[in-house]
Amino acid sequence: MNEGTKDLCNQFEHGGNIYRLAEELKIQERQVIDFSTSVNPLGVSKKVKAEIRKHLKYLHNYPDPDTKRLRKRLAQYLGIDHETILCGNGSTELIYLTARALKPERVLIPEPTSSEYERAVLTAESKEHRAQIEFLILKEEDRFEIKPEEFISALQEERTSSLLTPHPSRFCDMAFLCNPNNPTGKLLKREDVKKIADATEELACYLVVDEAFMDFCPDESVIKTVENNRYLIVLRTMTNYHALSGLRIGYGVFPPGLIEKVRKYKEPWTVNNLAQRAAVTALKDKVYRKETYGLMQQEKRFLEKNFRKLGVTFFPSDANFYLLKINNADEISHGLRRKGILVRDCANFKGLNNTYLRVAVKSHKENSILIKELTSILQPPSVHPYQGGK
Amino acid sequence: MNEGTKDLCNQFEHGGNIYRLAEELKIQERQVIDFSTSVNPLGVSKKVKAEIRKHLKYLHNYPDPDTKRLRKRLAQYLGIDHETILCGNGSTELIYLTARALKPERVLIPEPTSSEYERAVLTAESKEHRAQIEFLILKEEDRFEIKPEEFISALQEERTSSLLTPHPSRFCDMAFLCNPNNPTGKLLKREDVKKIADATEELACYLVVDEAFMDFCPDESVIKTVENNRYLIVLRTMTNYHALSGLRIGYGVFPPGLIEKVRKYKEPWTVNNLAQRAAVTALKDKVYRKETYGLMQQEKRFLEKNFRKLGVTFFPSDANFYLLKINNADEISHGLRRKGILVRDCANFKGLNNTYLRVAVKSHKENSILIKELTSILQPPSVHPYQGGK
Repeated sequence: MNEGTKDLCNQFEHGGNIYRLAEELKIQERQVIDFSTSVNPLGVSKKVKAEIRKHLKYLHNYPDPDTKRLRKRLAQYLGIDHETILCGNGSTELIYLTARALKPERVLIPEPTSSEYERAVLTAESKEHRAQIEFLILKEEDRFEIKPEEFISALQEERTSSLLTPHPSRFCDMAFLCNPNNPTGKLLKREDVKKIADATEELACYLVVDEAFMDFCPDESVIKTVENNRYLIVLRTMTNYHALSGLRIGYGVFPPGLIEKVRKYKEPWTVNNLAQRAAVTALKDKVYRKETYGLMQQEKRFLEKNFRKLGVTFFPSDANFYLLKINNADEISHGLRRKGILVRDCANFKGLNNTYLRVAVKSHKENSILIKELTSILQPPSVHPYQGGK
Repeated sequence: MNEGTKDLCNQFEHGGNIYRLAEELKIQERQVIDFSTSVNPLGVSKKVKAEIRKHLKYLHNYPDPDTKRLRKRLAQYLGIDHETILCGNGSTELIYLTARALKPERVLIPEPTSSEYERAVLTAESKEHRAQIEFLILKEEDRFEIKPEEFISALQEERTSSLLTPHPSRFCDMAFLCNPNNPTGKLLKREDVKKIADATEELACYLVVDEAFMDFCPDESVIKTVENNRYLIVLRTMTNYHALSGLRIGYGVFPPGLIEKVRKYKEPWTVNNLAQRAAVTALKDKVYRKETYGLMQQEKRFLEKNFRKLGVTFFPSDANFYLLKINNADEISHGLRRKGILVRDCANFKGLNNTYLRVAVKSHKENSILIKELTSILQPPSVHPYQGGK
């Protein structure tokens, strides 16, 4: 492993590094089967690829820094005002931007969840200012469900001062909520998120709802609530559902007063011009949506049936991935890696340990390979004594 | 103008917003002739476009967060160690990242220059920490040349305290140097930059040399000096020379000890996977380099000859653009806009005013149109009295 990857490999390591595995195994990147990132197995839609090809002749132009056409298309798609939307280099840019612009002093993060929230808050710190992060550890016995009352009361827990925070803020002034949650796949119903959002508005606490996987259950989104809640921010990405992970495109919806404050910190041109074109086309593609729905239904059934058969504990998922509980998860993950199959080790998620893996729902062919390889690791065929030699 | 563009339109406004002009004039974006951004008129090389087309089938993959293949290619191309390179979403990302990671207290910026340096320093501020920015205003009578002695002595000017900075740093701890400079086109010779870099190292002051246009005069780069200077940072972009403005790709070269500190603040996946592919291919394309050289030679001669003919003052340029001094520059710029021609008004550059325009060197066809339109504005044909009617 080179110097360049070292700090990515520890606490904030992600899935999806097919490049490193290909290098390790001395195989082509395309030979890696990546279950570690939760990208739509249909891949990028044909219409989007055609649009990119068509647009290559204008590639020398700077991207529109205002992403205006895309914001208008998104507004139409979501039924909201385009002036409340900011586009970013994936929703990742917007997570960091929000933390940097709003400079929270005390932040609530329910765990396990995406590590980007914590890292965004930590990197927004200055020499003089250090945010206090409170973790609300979700329990396996509750299926990692967030209970609105617990969440709200965690926001208001009194803190004692320490050397680092001599005058701690009384309540949290920012909270993150990934819904459906990564890596558990657990959805918090819209009414429950609204309950939390009402409470955070009351407390003058920013609630950042990361709906990275909400396209898989769009009726549960709170995106339309933003205009009526001065402290609610909703982030979305086109990485997972539209498979635009490679091009980098996400967006955030901010209340009217707040968006100006955040935009002041935004770097220009972060959304490349092919991503802007691709996103506009992807949002129009109804065929892709229908195919995705069908594929997900079918393949989730297939995987769940086989997980049960193998005796692998899985958590019901509202997204396109499963959290598995499995003994010797690290050994299994290693075994799969040797076969060129990448799954997400979950040991570096707070509140999880090395008995958890996350796997994406992929195409039937790839899912079948995963099940086959899992079977051969978990239920190795007993060697018949007479088959050993002759 | 919508809310979304308002804050981009003032102090930190850039060129290149063909989208806004197209909307204003109700024309297609492709009908705008953009002299306001300095992008290679050859456009994106054919080899690069072919590589992008080929790579579309892997577009669903996350980009390599380490940009390893590209860093290795860059290292080979530049004759440096790939472990000293960080790639970014244009060099813009690296300007902001550097300011954010190193949190300077007192910064020197020679003006006129790119406004991103100032904005990067300002947005890296926190509630408690406010950087002091010193501007070294370059003089037109010196052709906006940077004099190393003046630069070095400006770094060391003693400051008195104020309410905002009760304990000002004695010397500057960061300085920016755009070379060749934007918008003047003026190159500071390598030996002079080295002189400054020696002084800044002595003063423990980071020197950020932005070589955004250095590919047009590569022998004057100080990129190989970085490994021997703990305070020198060199930034490059593939926007201008390789016309990859739309895809967003830049890189920075950092001394070994410093790169870790900066990487700690870097957001993941900011360089999309097509940009990484495109950049690798672009660096190999020798034909493109040769054609660029020929075209620049020829078109710069053409433009200079015609500027002289028109009595327009221009500043000799080492890059692919010219700073023009011209009466009623704003009226001229407006007149050109009405024809769908975008030039860069320079009134919001510190140290310039509304008698300056910046124009890119474009293709012969486009340059001819510019000269024709400039002629008709500056030397309108006198209407012959007998031609008016019959």
